[in-house]
Amino acid sequence: MSPKSIRVCLSPALLPFYELDDTIAVVIDIFRATSSMCYGLANGARAIIPVEELEECLSYRGNGHLLAAERDGQVVAGFDFGNSPFSYTREKVAGKTIVLTTTNGTRAIQRCARANAVVLGSFLNITVLTDWLKNQPHHILLVCAGWKNHFNLEDTVFAGALVHRLKTADVDLDDAAHAAESLYREAQGDLASYLSKASHSKRMQHLHITQDIAFCLQQDQVSVIPILNGYELVSLTLSHPLQ
Amino acid sequence: MSPKSIRVCLSPALLPFYELDDTIAVVIDIFRATSSMCYGLANGARAIIPVEELEECLSYRGNGHLLAAERDGQVVAGFDFGNSPFSYTREKVAGKTIVLTTTNGTRAIQRCARANAVVLGSFLNITVLTDWLKNQPHHILLVCAGWKNHFNLEDTVFAGALVHRLKTADVDLDDAAHAAESLYREAQGDLASYLSKASHSKRMQHLHITQDIAFCLQQDQVSVIPILNGYELVSLTLSHPLQ
Repeated sequence: MSPKSIRVCLSPALLPFYELDDTIAVVIDIFRATSSMCYGLANGARAIIPVEELEECLSYRGNGHLLAAERDGQVVAGFDFGNSPFSYTREKVAGKTIVLTTTNGTRAIQRCARANAVVLGSFLNITVLTDWLKNQPHHILLVCAGWKNHFNLEDTVFAGALVHRLKTADVDLDDAAHAAESLYREAQGDLASYLSKASHSKRMQHLHITQDIAFCLQQDQVSVIPILNGYELVSLTLSHPLQ
Repeated sequence: MSPKSIRVCLSPALLPFYELDDTIAVVIDIFRATSSMCYGLANGARAIIPVEELEECLSYRGNGHLLAAERDGQVVAGFDFGNSPFSYTREKVAGKTIVLTTTNGTRAIQRCARANAVVLGSFLNITVLTDWLKNQPHHILLVCAGWKNHFNLEDTVFAGALVHRLKTADVDLDDAAHAAESLYREAQGDLASYLSKASHSKRMQHLHITQDIAFCLQQDQVSVIPILNGYELVSLTLSHPLQ
């Protein structure tokens, strides 16, 4: 069994042009939403609820949930935390439900909801994710969250890493999948150096969160695959049926 | 003098997210609209009027204009020709005004109209275009026409060729410009081979227009720069003022 095709959507603004029938969508927001969500679920968070707007996030206050909000790379005033992975440690999140809104990542997740399944990818869970995707007899759409609807390097390079691991002679790739794989092959020898030219890396360096960048580029730190179940992201288990 | 920044817009659907103030837009539709338009103006066409819809194109019938229409890679029934460069020879177009509608290219041109200037790029005019752009003290936005709002390889690789020739230490590049240049550097040794995996190449091979592909990948066949002047594309001359 292998995927039917692998396509890469380079910006959430392009999602309306993709069929999502018979498709597993993999949402990618390396710096930092999907990396932190993988880490949070691995550290025992019960679920993560992605919401688009700050007001919706605030409406969950008082339910015992943790409220997380990031805009323009920074924690929004009045919220428990943003999307730094260092906020998603076991001490902070075990047993908790987190409600999260970020600039790019949560919006991309919401817009994929009509796919057969929506899962999250990051370098932190790349091998467990790849092994699972290899056995899916569906189309795969890799959705780069980008930055404010623009293309970004880090999400595309990670999409290319997945293409590189998943492609076989029988799997159709679209042009964006070919391009993403080319970029990954160029970057793979020294990801951190290659991505240091990315605009978002520069933005994060400016915000003094270089530790976050290094953390998010580590491979195989966790063995969970976050999957959208209704309106919540939970850990995929073997007993979890695809929708 | 050099450009202030170079950005690459990977799909016309992403144009709403770009500022076009103080910007020269370079529209790129390698297979085949901008290649053929460069060739047609070099062969003495008086002007080319890009229009979005077939009906608008037909409304010019009876003015002595040549009417050209392509949809899904093929000439539309009832029109003089489509966007194969071999239809834009001196014998056919000298002194004529051509009204052209294509799947992707003319739409991208229309959507850039609010830029300071809109010019067309192709491998056929790459050196004259690059030499002109090097002396422009504006931002440069390279607009890939793509395929039905999707990313495509050939337009992006050409954008990367321009980035490669234009960048200096003082010019800011966005992430898409970095990526396009990476792809160009990988492809430049054998463009035809690299682009043979592009979906549009496959589409054109299927339509038996492989000669068109080879033609459009030739560098420096013409010395014109098509520029949008009102609603017409004409040859840029040194006396032509920027809008």
